[in-house]
Amino acid sequence: MMPKMPIKTREDLSKVYTPGVAKVCMAIHDNPSSAFSLTIKRNTVAVVTDGTAVLGLGDIGPEAAMPVMEGKAMLFKQLAGVDAFPISLASKDTEELIRTIKLLSPAFGGINLEDISSPRCFEIEERLKRELDIPVFHDDQHGTAVVVLAGLLNALKIVGKPVDGIRVVVTGIGAAGAAILKMLLAAGVRDVIAVDREGALCRGESYPNPMWTWVAERTNPQMKRGALSDVIEGADVFIGVSRKGVLKVEDIQKMGRDPIVFTMANPEPEIEPELAEPHVRVLATGRSDYPNQINNVLCFPGMFRGALDCRATVINEEMKLAAAWAIASAVSDKELNDQYIIPSIFNDKIVPLIRKAVIQAAIETNVARRIPPEFREDN
Amino acid sequence: MMPKMPIKTREDLSKVYTPGVAKVCMAIHDNPSSAFSLTIKRNTVAVVTDGTAVLGLGDIGPEAAMPVMEGKAMLFKQLAGVDAFPISLASKDTEELIRTIKLLSPAFGGINLEDISSPRCFEIEERLKRELDIPVFHDDQHGTAVVVLAGLLNALKIVGKPVDGIRVVVTGIGAAGAAILKMLLAAGVRDVIAVDREGALCRGESYPNPMWTWVAERTNPQMKRGALSDVIEGADVFIGVSRKGVLKVEDIQKMGRDPIVFTMANPEPEIEPELAEPHVRVLATGRSDYPNQINNVLCFPGMFRGALDCRATVINEEMKLAAAWAIASAVSDKELNDQYIIPSIFNDKIVPLIRKAVIQAAIETNVARRIPPEFREDN
Repeated sequence: MMPKMPIKTREDLSKVYTPGVAKVCMAIHDNPSSAFSLTIKRNTVAVVTDGTAVLGLGDIGPEAAMPVMEGKAMLFKQLAGVDAFPISLASKDTEELIRTIKLLSPAFGGINLEDISSPRCFEIEERLKRELDIPVFHDDQHGTAVVVLAGLLNALKIVGKPVDGIRVVVTGIGAAGAAILKMLLAAGVRDVIAVDREGALCRGESYPNPMWTWVAERTNPQMKRGALSDVIEGADVFIGVSRKGVLKVEDIQKMGRDPIVFTMANPEPEIEPELAEPHVRVLATGRSDYPNQINNVLCFPGMFRGALDCRATVINEEMKLAAAWAIASAVSDKELNDQYIIPSIFNDKIVPLIRKAVIQAAIETNVARRIPPEFREDN
Repeated sequence: MMPKMPIKTREDLSKVYTPGVAKVCMAIHDNPSSAFSLTIKRNTVAVVTDGTAVLGLGDIGPEAAMPVMEGKAMLFKQLAGVDAFPISLASKDTEELIRTIKLLSPAFGGINLEDISSPRCFEIEERLKRELDIPVFHDDQHGTAVVVLAGLLNALKIVGKPVDGIRVVVTGIGAAGAAILKMLLAAGVRDVIAVDREGALCRGESYPNPMWTWVAERTNPQMKRGALSDVIEGADVFIGVSRKGVLKVEDIQKMGRDPIVFTMANPEPEIEPELAEPHVRVLATGRSDYPNQINNVLCFPGMFRGALDCRATVINEEMKLAAAWAIASAVSDKELNDQYIIPSIFNDKIVPLIRKAVIQAAIETNVARRIPPEFREDN
């Protein structure tokens, strides 16, 4: 938090502090929406965790989670000029977390949830989305899903297959897996099979996790049953957000022509990239030491830049799809190849591209409370 | 929140974010106190309100309170290098506020409570002080009290009266009034009378507000009864934190030799300074347009600078007294006069003086978790 103007004189002080500040307070009191123009709400996002699912480390607690939130806040600022503040909450109770985040929301223009364990993260995000009028975005779910879809759209270009004609197998139906499935369905993928420890999820079965039931009802149209090694037969795409060792070379060999494999388990992928590579057409991982890194840093800065600039009330499916297409479009047809389906996070076109797409989608779906000048019709 | 280092390369990114950040997380997980050196906790204070008692404006709500919190955060940074973050909570429930502040405390090295209405502020501060291991400081109470005491110490020098020989009358026994009374007692004032709407508070009486009972039991040794105009007879000092019109010229005329009058009601003092001036020796107000402004900006930056630098677990009475003496000492005997009992907030000796005094007091009372190098015995 750096002051924009130094306070040097008694007059400066009486403007930014008492008594001058009283006028600003009363303006907001009389017109609450002016908080967006008169306070930090305009450009400030809370990066909130409870420390229960930090990176691959698990439930390490709110103090130990802080460095991740701080790193994220730095990236928000540097990549998109968004002022982000890290908040690590000392509770694991779903209701208490919801209530606390609601209570501290007035200062903020958006809430970025982070590293909250599944399935609690679903309830927390859903409730906050319903009960707050600012965007709430669980980055581990949606940031990952947006970047996966962006990479997949470009990979499909390479292999020449249409989105609505492919079969995708997703393993690991936690926070990221569920969000990826939803995103794929929203993008028009018709044949997707979700696999977790009990095998392929299939409608009609009963599952302990309500998210699995939700997924089972909406996926696996051919009602395939069995382990990953059974249902992967003939699949065009494998997307793994599960754990090391889940995918074998033999599984890849059963896939259809030009296999696309996104192996993103953290810190170690479902299959060693060196083992997979000879058998796939396009390989992507979550790691920075291989080509095609699926990194959610590609999404959240531009996503919130756009949402804040149009004072969106939510981040909806349309805005996420628009962001995925924007990220995919940052790789030109000339650049696109097996080893380069995802743009670099240091590509400075990314944030403006996402921002523009997200604002456009927000306006079209009537969730924007402000139309930035360049989107006004008389412009 | 500005990154200290720009992130320019993939290696920079892998240090501040995944995977490099995992090592920092685990270091804190293994040794929680390292959060002070490895996260923003080291230098970050939450400026927290519920928007119920904002300046003289009253209960204007959390959104409208934000500009005051933002102004305060700017002053923290500019005057003392403290990173402060404004948090406006959307609740007025005492228990809920206590719980929420506790839950969000892991990120912070201190909590500055602000503009919370009385008597809720007493319970909220007391409970948080007991239940948290970082300093909790309600600035409207203690910041004001520290600066009042600083001004009084210098005013007494001018009139040549000892602290333990004076009679003080305080009007307005809300948050600031109660804290001023406590501070005066802690500083050695023996004869102080508290006056509110029902007149002089006196032990043995029963009051609706538990704070008034607490005060009545500890003040008014001669058990004087009656209105302000009665009990002010012969008093050496008047301190007003009540409301416009409470003090008359005739009241001042009944005071002892060389009256000292601090008239600090906000926004309009208990008596118009122009009316009071001919009858007093030393006049102080809360306003910037008269000499001797009692401004809590003199206290909080240095107070938290000191508390953070020694990782104090609390801000105790000794630290507050030390801060008051430090502020008083910033006016040299040569400078001291009726019109100049309080140093300028732009005097850049103030923060280092308070810091040093506060750290010394924290070390002596065993509430410092870190001894800064210049306070170490081998230094």
